[in-house]
Amino acid sequence: MPSPYREGLPPQPPGPPEGEQHFTASQTVRDLVIGTADGLTVPFALAAGLSGAVAANPLIVTAGMAEIAAGCVAMGLGGYLAARTDAQHYVTERAREEQETRDYPEREKWEVSALLHRYGLRGETLARATEAIASDRRRWVDFMMRFELEIAEPAPGRAAQSAATIGGAYVVGGLIPLAPYMVLAETLPALAASCGLTGTALLGFGWLKARATGLPPLRGALQTLLIGGLAAATAFLVARWVGG
Amino acid sequence: MPSPYREGLPPQPPGPPEGEQHFTASQTVRDLVIGTADGLTVPFALAAGLSGAVAANPLIVTAGMAEIAAGCVAMGLGGYLAARTDAQHYVTERAREEQETRDYPEREKWEVSALLHRYGLRGETLARATEAIASDRRRWVDFMMRFELEIAEPAPGRAAQSAATIGGAYVVGGLIPLAPYMVLAETLPALAASCGLTGTALLGFGWLKARATGLPPLRGALQTLLIGGLAAATAFLVARWVGG
Repeated sequence: MPSPYREGLPPQPPGPPEGEQHFTASQTVRDLVIGTADGLTVPFALAAGLSGAVAANPLIVTAGMAEIAAGCVAMGLGGYLAARTDAQHYVTERAREEQETRDYPEREKWEVSALLHRYGLRGETLARATEAIASDRRRWVDFMMRFELEIAEPAPGRAAQSAATIGGAYVVGGLIPLAPYMVLAETLPALAASCGLTGTALLGFGWLKARATGLPPLRGALQTLLIGGLAAATAFLVARWVGG
Repeated sequence: MPSPYREGLPPQPPGPPEGEQHFTASQTVRDLVIGTADGLTVPFALAAGLSGAVAANPLIVTAGMAEIAAGCVAMGLGGYLAARTDAQHYVTERAREEQETRDYPEREKWEVSALLHRYGLRGETLARATEAIASDRRRWVDFMMRFELEIAEPAPGRAAQSAATIGGAYVVGGLIPLAPYMVLAETLPALAASCGLTGTALLGFGWLKARATGLPPLRGALQTLLIGGLAAATAFLVARWVGG
């Protein structure tokens, strides 16, 4: 009886009519989330904290802007180096894995077998599948990188894009809580306005973040607001305690 | 001729005498790196920035402590929620994938085939390997989660541990650059001492981080120092410009 699999891959059978609904956030969305979350929260909490200890808006704006600059550079460059490190790590580990397939081919074939064995392949099928994968060194190393070491090949140009996204999101996020201190003269009204503005932004941001990852939006919105609120309350108490 | 693969998995052939030297940093090391990197850099840069605009150490210490509190809570709770979200995401996606194997078994089998086809399996071997994987639903869904969606199952209790590690590392890292401002009365000597102390800490931290990921330690040390220096210089200039 001829198997439909005999030559290459058979045609794709129909799936769900609306396509498969899986949520895997892109790296750019993740970078935006990292930058915005910290940018909204930390400068807001710092400004709120200083409101409890130092009653002068220009000083709060100076500290806040210095924090935004420091956070933007530290997180942006940190993201840049992390992405660069990932890329170098991939190249190093791939070279090592390829050398292993030359020096210890039987061991590396056995590792392919062990992986497939875990998913139910046995006997002749296991042996043939292992030989098929190991028959082409590039595919063999591809397989080991992805399924043994679980290291994905980073996209080229990721590092610079990641740095710009994280750093930019941090600045945009950070200017929202600081704006009232720039516009208003008195500290307490500025603090109240900053709480309202940042609270709204945190709720909206948490909502969007939850939707992008396929989780309940309302819970996401409240969780993000809670983090910002707790961070600000802690900073307020610490600043009071240290500054008073 | 009897194949050694016929029954189960054959014994493991010998590999490199020193074992395989791959570097895959644990999640805890990653959390430590995230917390320490930002904790060392941002409070240092904020304090240095304020030194250029506000000539009073108690104020710098108040702002710095407020920043450490804000950053510790924001990053710690952020890490907690990120880990919780990962866990929920895994459960949701796994349920969805399992439902797909019930509603569209032929399509999901084809997806297994398509994955194995990419690594060189053909004909009868491809058909048998696919059937072997799909013969047990748990293994089948395991396979799809790991190799199609590439979502790893998060360890239980990760969220709380991640929060404590990141938050704690942030506080420890942040107190290093701030200590001179607490001990010394004058701003400029405190700034100089903070630069020296933080520079040394950044070099040491970058060195250890590079060693943990298998990259050249000297380059790692200098890169980390560079990020801290650039963040501090930017914060200094921004604080001067806003505050003057």
